[in-house]
Amino acid sequence: MNPTDLSTHDAFLDACIAAIGDAHVLRTPADMAGYLTDWRKRYTGQARAVLRPGTTEEVAAIVRIAGAHDVALVPQGGNTGLSGGATPDVSGTQAVLSLARLRAVRAIDPANNTITVEAGCVLADVQRAAREGNRLFPLSLAAEGSCTIGGNLATNAGGTAVLCYGTTRELCLGLEVVTPSGEIWNGLRGLRKDNTGYDLRDLFIGAEGTLGIITAAVMKLYPLPAAQMTALAAVESPHAALKLLDIAQRAAGPLLTGFELMSDFCLELVGRHFPEQRYPFSQRYPQVVLLELSDNESEQHARDLFEGLMQTAFDEGVAHDAVVAQNLTESRAFWNLREHIPLAQAEEGLNIKHDIAVPISRIGHFIDETGALIAQAAPGARMVVFGHLGDGNLHYNVQTPEGGDPRAFLKTYQSALNRIVYDNVIAHQGTISAEHGIGQLKVGDNARVKSPVELSLMRALKHALDPHGRMNPGKVIDLG
Amino acid sequence: MNPTDLSTHDAFLDACIAAIGDAHVLRTPADMAGYLTDWRKRYTGQARAVLRPGTTEEVAAIVRIAGAHDVALVPQGGNTGLSGGATPDVSGTQAVLSLARLRAVRAIDPANNTITVEAGCVLADVQRAAREGNRLFPLSLAAEGSCTIGGNLATNAGGTAVLCYGTTRELCLGLEVVTPSGEIWNGLRGLRKDNTGYDLRDLFIGAEGTLGIITAAVMKLYPLPAAQMTALAAVESPHAALKLLDIAQRAAGPLLTGFELMSDFCLELVGRHFPEQRYPFSQRYPQVVLLELSDNESEQHARDLFEGLMQTAFDEGVAHDAVVAQNLTESRAFWNLREHIPLAQAEEGLNIKHDIAVPISRIGHFIDETGALIAQAAPGARMVVFGHLGDGNLHYNVQTPEGGDPRAFLKTYQSALNRIVYDNVIAHQGTISAEHGIGQLKVGDNARVKSPVELSLMRALKHALDPHGRMNPGKVIDLG
Repeated sequence: MNPTDLSTHDAFLDACIAAIGDAHVLRTPADMAGYLTDWRKRYTGQARAVLRPGTTEEVAAIVRIAGAHDVALVPQGGNTGLSGGATPDVSGTQAVLSLARLRAVRAIDPANNTITVEAGCVLADVQRAAREGNRLFPLSLAAEGSCTIGGNLATNAGGTAVLCYGTTRELCLGLEVVTPSGEIWNGLRGLRKDNTGYDLRDLFIGAEGTLGIITAAVMKLYPLPAAQMTALAAVESPHAALKLLDIAQRAAGPLLTGFELMSDFCLELVGRHFPEQRYPFSQRYPQVVLLELSDNESEQHARDLFEGLMQTAFDEGVAHDAVVAQNLTESRAFWNLREHIPLAQAEEGLNIKHDIAVPISRIGHFIDETGALIAQAAPGARMVVFGHLGDGNLHYNVQTPEGGDPRAFLKTYQSALNRIVYDNVIAHQGTISAEHGIGQLKVGDNARVKSPVELSLMRALKHALDPHGRMNPGKVIDLG
Repeated sequence: MNPTDLSTHDAFLDACIAAIGDAHVLRTPADMAGYLTDWRKRYTGQARAVLRPGTTEEVAAIVRIAGAHDVALVPQGGNTGLSGGATPDVSGTQAVLSLARLRAVRAIDPANNTITVEAGCVLADVQRAAREGNRLFPLSLAAEGSCTIGGNLATNAGGTAVLCYGTTRELCLGLEVVTPSGEIWNGLRGLRKDNTGYDLRDLFIGAEGTLGIITAAVMKLYPLPAAQMTALAAVESPHAALKLLDIAQRAAGPLLTGFELMSDFCLELVGRHFPEQRYPFSQRYPQVVLLELSDNESEQHARDLFEGLMQTAFDEGVAHDAVVAQNLTESRAFWNLREHIPLAQAEEGLNIKHDIAVPISRIGHFIDETGALIAQAAPGARMVVFGHLGDGNLHYNVQTPEGGDPRAFLKTYQSALNRIVYDNVIAHQGTISAEHGIGQLKVGDNARVKSPVELSLMRALKHALDPHGRMNPGKVIDLG
C-alpha cells in the first residue's frame, strides 16, 4: 500500500512526517499492531499513529507538534511492562511514541564507572557494553533481552540484584528528558554527588512517561566481580528464611547480591510443567532460598564464605539442607528453577498476581495472616509465593483450587482476593506495587490506598509539569 | 523579663503561643541570637520570632498560622549548614522554625534494617541508637555532634562514607513532611521497593526546606562490620591516586568505604598549626590518600585485603609508600589528619572555599588545568586541595600567598577565582555544589551555570508546591 493513500489531510500526521520522515510514522493496522497490546495481553488500545523518532531532537519536535495539535502521547520502550503503562487507550486519538530507534551507547567511562545510553537501548545491550568495558551493569530481569533502559527508568524496574545494587533509580546518575513543552533538559551528569537544586532526575524516574519523556541516561557501573556463586538452602518457613537472610547479611554484607524465596508449591508447579528442571534436594522441604554472592576476591573466597554462613545456619537450626553450585551450569540451573515459576504458573492456568512489598521484618506475619484470610475466603485456593525476599518484595500469587475452573474462580474471587491482599499489605505498611509500577492496571487501587495528601501532591506535580495532560494520560494517577 | 511584656498584640505571635506554648516562641534578641547567624558566620539575619514546636502536629499548626498571617518560615536544624540555608534574611519579617525539639527515635527495626527518627535528632544520636540495635547508620560528617538528621536530609548531606553507602538521599527510605499548606504527608515507609507514583521523597530531600518541612524519616541501617581498617598511601599525583582507587575498588569492591585525597600542602598546614598531628611518613610525598575498608569477616581479612591491594599498587608503580593503622588509636590519628585540614586552613587565615565535583575520570585534568589558570590569575595563591576523591568531590580551596594579606587578597581575587573554578567545573560536566547545597550562598552562581530549562522546571515545582512562596524564600532558587 502506498503510504500516501492513508493520508486524510491530517495536519498532525503531516507535521510528524515532515519532522521524522514518512517511514517512521506508522499508521496501518498491521504496522501498528505490535505497539497496541501490552505484554500480558490485558490491554489492547488504538492509536492515531505510532511515531518512531530517531534522535532526541526529533522526540522534542514530535512533542511540540503534539502540543500544537493537542494530541496525547504514549511513550513506549520494549513494550514488556506488566501494568499496561505503555498501551494507548481505545479512543484512537492518542499517538504511541516509540523510543526504539534511540539505541546508541553514547559513551562509556570506565574510570568514572558510568555509561551514557539512549532510552531505546535494550537492557541486555547495556549489560554487554558494560562488560566490554570490563565493568558490570547490575540491573537484571527476565525481560532483559527486549526491555529498554528507558522503560526500566520510566517504571523504576527492580529485578534480581536490588539487594546490593538498588533499583533502576539507584543505578541512575543523570537523565536527558524532553519536557511536556517540547524542550530538552540535559541533565546527563555522571556525578555521585550534586546538590544544586531540586531532584528532577528522580521525579522523572518512575513517572511512567506522565511528566516527560526520558531520551537518555547516565547509569552507574561497577567493577566486574571475580566470582559469582549461587546456592540453594532448604528452610522450614518464611520466618526461617528471614533468619537465614540475617545470617547471610552479617557474614557477607554487601557481597550478598541475591536472596530469593520459593515455596515448595512453586517448585512443585515447576516440576509438574517443566520436568527437566530437577528438584535439587533428595527430599521435599517447605521453602527453598536461592542465595547469590558476588565476590571481588576469588571463587574460593566466595565458596568459603558460603560454607561458613551455611554452617552457622545449620548450627542455629535455621536451615535443613543446602547445595552450592559447583559451576556455571549448576548456577544457571538454580536460577532456572526460580525463573520457571511464572512460566509454570501460566501453564497451570489463569491466576491472580500481586507484586507487593512489606517491611522485611513483617513478611513472615504477612504471609501467615494473608494466607489464612485467603483460605477462608476462597477455600482450596493455592498460594504461589516467591520473590525477592531480601528486598521485602513478594510475588504473592493465587492459583485456582486443584482441578477447578480458572475463569469461574477468577470471576468469583479476583476482586475480593485483591482487596484482602492490598488491605493487608497496607495494614503492614507495605506497597501494592513494589516493582511493576501503576500503569493503567492499578490506578484505581492506588487511589484507594494512598492518602488524600499524597494524591494531591502528585496531582500538583502533574499539573505543574504537564498542564495540558498530554503525557501518557490515564496512567499512574487519575486526575479526577 | 515577663514574656507578656513583649507582646505587641501581634496576632501571628499570639496564635503561635496558643499553638505551641509561650516558652517555645522565642522573641528576645538574646533568646534568638543563636538562630540568626550561620555556622560559618557569613550571614546574620533578623527574625520576628524563633518557633520551637514539639510535635509534627505543632509544626503543621505553625505552618497554617504562618499561612493565615502571610509569614515566611525558615526551617532550621542544628544550624551547621555551610551555605546559609537556615538563616533568615535581614527584614525581620520571617520566622525561624526550629525542629530541635522533635528529637525522638520513634522506632528501630533491626530485622528490616531501618530506624525511624524525628527531624531534630542529632546525627550522633541516630548513629548511637543504631549501634544499640547492633546496626550501623553510616552517615558521618564533621558536624555529627550537633547537626540534625532533618538538616542532613534537607541538604542531602554527604560526608566520609558516600563511596559505599551513598548520600543522605540514598540512606532514606521514607519521610514525614508538613506541606506548605500545613498538611501532614505520612510517607514513613520502610520499603526497599515501592513504585506507586511520583517520588515525593526525593523531591523534599535536598530542597532545603523550600518545598515543605521534613519532620521525620525512615533511614536505612546496615549490619555492623566486623572490622574497620584505615591506611595511608603516598602517591605522586591525583592521577596516581585515581589509579590506586581503581586498584582498591577492583580488589575490595563494596568493602572500600572511604577514599580521601590530601595534597602535601594540606598536611603541611596541619603540621604548621597542629604540630601534635604527626606526619605519617619518613619523607614528604606530593599526595597522601586515606583508605578505609569495612569488613564483614574479620580484622585479619581486612588486613590481608589491604596488603594485597597495596602490593598491586607497588608492583604497578602507583604508590610510593603505605602505612596501615594497627589499632583504633592509629586509625583515629589518620582520620584526624584529614579532619584537621579545614581547621588548619582557618588558622592560616581567610580563604576561598569550593565544594565541587566532577566525573572521577576528569579529576586529574581538572586539578591540573584549574591550578594553572589560578596560578596565572593570582600569582602565589596556594591551593588547598583535599576531599572525597572516591566520590569525585573535592574541597578545592585557595589560600592567600605566603605572607600576604588575606582580606586584600580576597577582595581582589575572590570573585575572579570563583568564576575560574566554576567555569572549569562546568566545562568538565561537574557541579558547583557537591554536598553543601545552595542555601543563599550560591543562588546567583547556580542561576548562572544552570540551563534555562532546568531553572524553569525547578521554578514550576516551587510554584506548584509553595504557590505563596512562604517556605524558606530566597534559598536554592531565585524566583526572579
